[in-house]
Amino acid sequence: MLHTTIESIPGFSVAGIASGVKKHGKRDLALVVSDRPCAAAGVFTTNLVKAAPVHFDQAQLARNPGGIRAVVTNAGVANACTGEQGDRDAAAMAAHTAAALGCDPQPCDPQGVLVLSTGVIGAPLPMDKIAAGITCAAGELAPDGWDDAAAAIMTTDTRPKLARVTVETADGTYSVAGIAKGSGMIAPHMATMLATLVTDAALDAPTLQAALAQANRTSFNRIVVDGDMSTNDTVLLLANGASGVQVSDGAALAQFTAALEQVCVALAKAIVQDGEGVTRFITLTVTGAADEADALKVATTIATSPLVKTAFYGGDANWGRILAAAGRADVPLDPNKLVLWFAPGETPLTSASNGSGNGLKLVSGGAPTAYAEADAAAIMAEKSVAVRLDLGMGQAEAIVWTCDLSHDYVSINGHYRS
Amino acid sequence: MLHTTIESIPGFSVAGIASGVKKHGKRDLALVVSDRPCAAAGVFTTNLVKAAPVHFDQAQLARNPGGIRAVVTNAGVANACTGEQGDRDAAAMAAHTAAALGCDPQPCDPQGVLVLSTGVIGAPLPMDKIAAGITCAAGELAPDGWDDAAAAIMTTDTRPKLARVTVETADGTYSVAGIAKGSGMIAPHMATMLATLVTDAALDAPTLQAALAQANRTSFNRIVVDGDMSTNDTVLLLANGASGVQVSDGAALAQFTAALEQVCVALAKAIVQDGEGVTRFITLTVTGAADEADALKVATTIATSPLVKTAFYGGDANWGRILAAAGRADVPLDPNKLVLWFAPGETPLTSASNGSGNGLKLVSGGAPTAYAEADAAAIMAEKSVAVRLDLGMGQAEAIVWTCDLSHDYVSINGHYRS
Repeated sequence: MLHTTIESIPGFSVAGIASGVKKHGKRDLALVVSDRPCAAAGVFTTNLVKAAPVHFDQAQLARNPGGIRAVVTNAGVANACTGEQGDRDAAAMAAHTAAALGCDPQPCDPQGVLVLSTGVIGAPLPMDKIAAGITCAAGELAPDGWDDAAAAIMTTDTRPKLARVTVETADGTYSVAGIAKGSGMIAPHMATMLATLVTDAALDAPTLQAALAQANRTSFNRIVVDGDMSTNDTVLLLANGASGVQVSDGAALAQFTAALEQVCVALAKAIVQDGEGVTRFITLTVTGAADEADALKVATTIATSPLVKTAFYGGDANWGRILAAAGRADVPLDPNKLVLWFAPGETPLTSASNGSGNGLKLVSGGAPTAYAEADAAAIMAEKSVAVRLDLGMGQAEAIVWTCDLSHDYVSINGHYRS
Repeated sequence: MLHTTIESIPGFSVAGIASGVKKHGKRDLALVVSDRPCAAAGVFTTNLVKAAPVHFDQAQLARNPGGIRAVVTNAGVANACTGEQGDRDAAAMAAHTAAALGCDPQPCDPQGVLVLSTGVIGAPLPMDKIAAGITCAAGELAPDGWDDAAAAIMTTDTRPKLARVTVETADGTYSVAGIAKGSGMIAPHMATMLATLVTDAALDAPTLQAALAQANRTSFNRIVVDGDMSTNDTVLLLANGASGVQVSDGAALAQFTAALEQVCVALAKAIVQDGEGVTRFITLTVTGAADEADALKVATTIATSPLVKTAFYGGDANWGRILAAAGRADVPLDPNKLVLWFAPGETPLTSASNGSGNGLKLVSGGAPTAYAEADAAAIMAEKSVAVRLDLGMGQAEAIVWTCDLSHDYVSINGHYRS
């Protein structure tokens, strides 16, 4: 069962404080600390312009995948495009964190710290504020600090994002939980987003990495706000084994991966629903594709189309723009086979929903049906709309979650640095 | 020398009238007619969802490339996604036009008519109004009707777009001229745009097609408004030979192609400058690429980035977003080699502008220079800004013309059908 709160996860203590980087005394620095070394895994932006913390964490995980103790996150400045100073600053954040954690309950080595930054690109980190903030946060660590930490990693997010699933097994109970920040620049392959996930299950690092890669593929890599891709996107996962439940393979691993995917999908959807200026949430399914890659390519092209997104903002069931976007997705298709449905709500329209629960069929054989515009308008009046486009080319399908493009998106991003 | 007016082109007569499809009695139907058969060429949308007139013209040009007499254009309804009725309506438009032209000065066959439509996708053409409008337009044909025709093909354009170049040769003088409509959905590979070009030079159809393809590659295929691609995009070119100047190959053909490219670039830039909600015009050059395809891919990714476009709207010299867009363009690059310049105005910054005329260098070696933010702000206060990103990977370069993403774009496209 999915929860959107995190009371505590055994072995982890957490804090989120204000270091003075964000204006108005808002929380902007978070620590997630395990009382023992964790197996750790990470997935990162595929942008070739990577921020310093991405390079740092990739190297850290390669060196020390079984000995991670903490994740430190600052919000407000992204430490991206900052040259060699940026690399030094990322390393200094890890060193400060290790020093601040001291020996309680055991010494933390700088090699045990992962670093996340988010915010403005190109500015150097204000290291004096961040160093002092790390010391302050270390003094506030508590098992129930998750709300503060989730608030501290926000940039233009309007609300914190938390998710937790509890897993019952024959060997005992464990949790998978995490916090995320998103907002603009969210595209497939993870854009301006960070997530720190934890579990008290015990897994080795390679198994953890494989599970994270799999869960990421159908969650954070399936969301589109504006199609841009950030320099900083990172999802980290720490497993400290405090539950005593060992997860290694077979059904136990499948159960863990399913729980992890559930947490990732919940956080991914929360990111889109809180996207910059979002007024309408769209669950888009492309069915009947020759393979999953084709389905995903068509879905992503529709989800990034400014004309489709502005029509959703205007509450206009402009199916022609959806067909036109599909037609330029660089996927073989026959326009005369296209079928399109709309329905209210978040439940994905899949090929399994054929028959009942289909929603309103707007297009069949590539041309409009005799649907009533009032029925389409009623669906478009909802905050959440499900859309299904069937290509009639095969059996594969893919879901993406996306949103409209509003006046507020333009306002927020027209003046982000001021 | 380039002109933005067309007085007359020998052998062509033109009209633009109101058929009642557009509201408020606006002109919405245009005829361009030659007094003799023309060699004709066309380039078309690569969207797999093609409107009926695209299929019709492609077949017509394949059948009768040396015998085209007229182009009829209607605005308001795009005749796209209209099934077999759409194909019948496109053919009927051609037949009505041939009949309306009668025998003056010689009979026009339906096989001599090309058809263009633009406007809302998915609605059937109101053929009664269009047929009556064609008859009306045929009665108003005149050598100086170009302003009316340019106005009649507009949809959300705010002003008509005309361009003309006169070419002096040893054998006499001829013109290349044309009208275009654009606005939203403009992407590389020609989006919601139509253009009808004419010349009174004499060329055979295959030579004309090759020249048009070449000119299109560096003009209409280099503009980006919103990255979407329409179902209807078409550029047609008619050569009637009324000047008596024969153009077949060598220097004469190069001279013709250069004039054609000049007309196409002028119309292409006019389309972007009049893009939906545009407040700032950007001439973007990517230099130092390994090959032209790489340069174009990086330039197009930057030009379609909503974060880059909203920053230009806000007058924010947000170079980090430009680097971040370049990094996701799927082109090999070394972030530490990136150099970025901004300058006021429309003149492209190319590798030839190294030294003087460079503009303001914001980024060098992938990190910000010590530029003064006030200098960048002064450039961003201009209506036209030139941007150059050098990749440091080779010698190839490419120019694209693009624009910002404004509140008005969202307003216009949020409620287009109402």
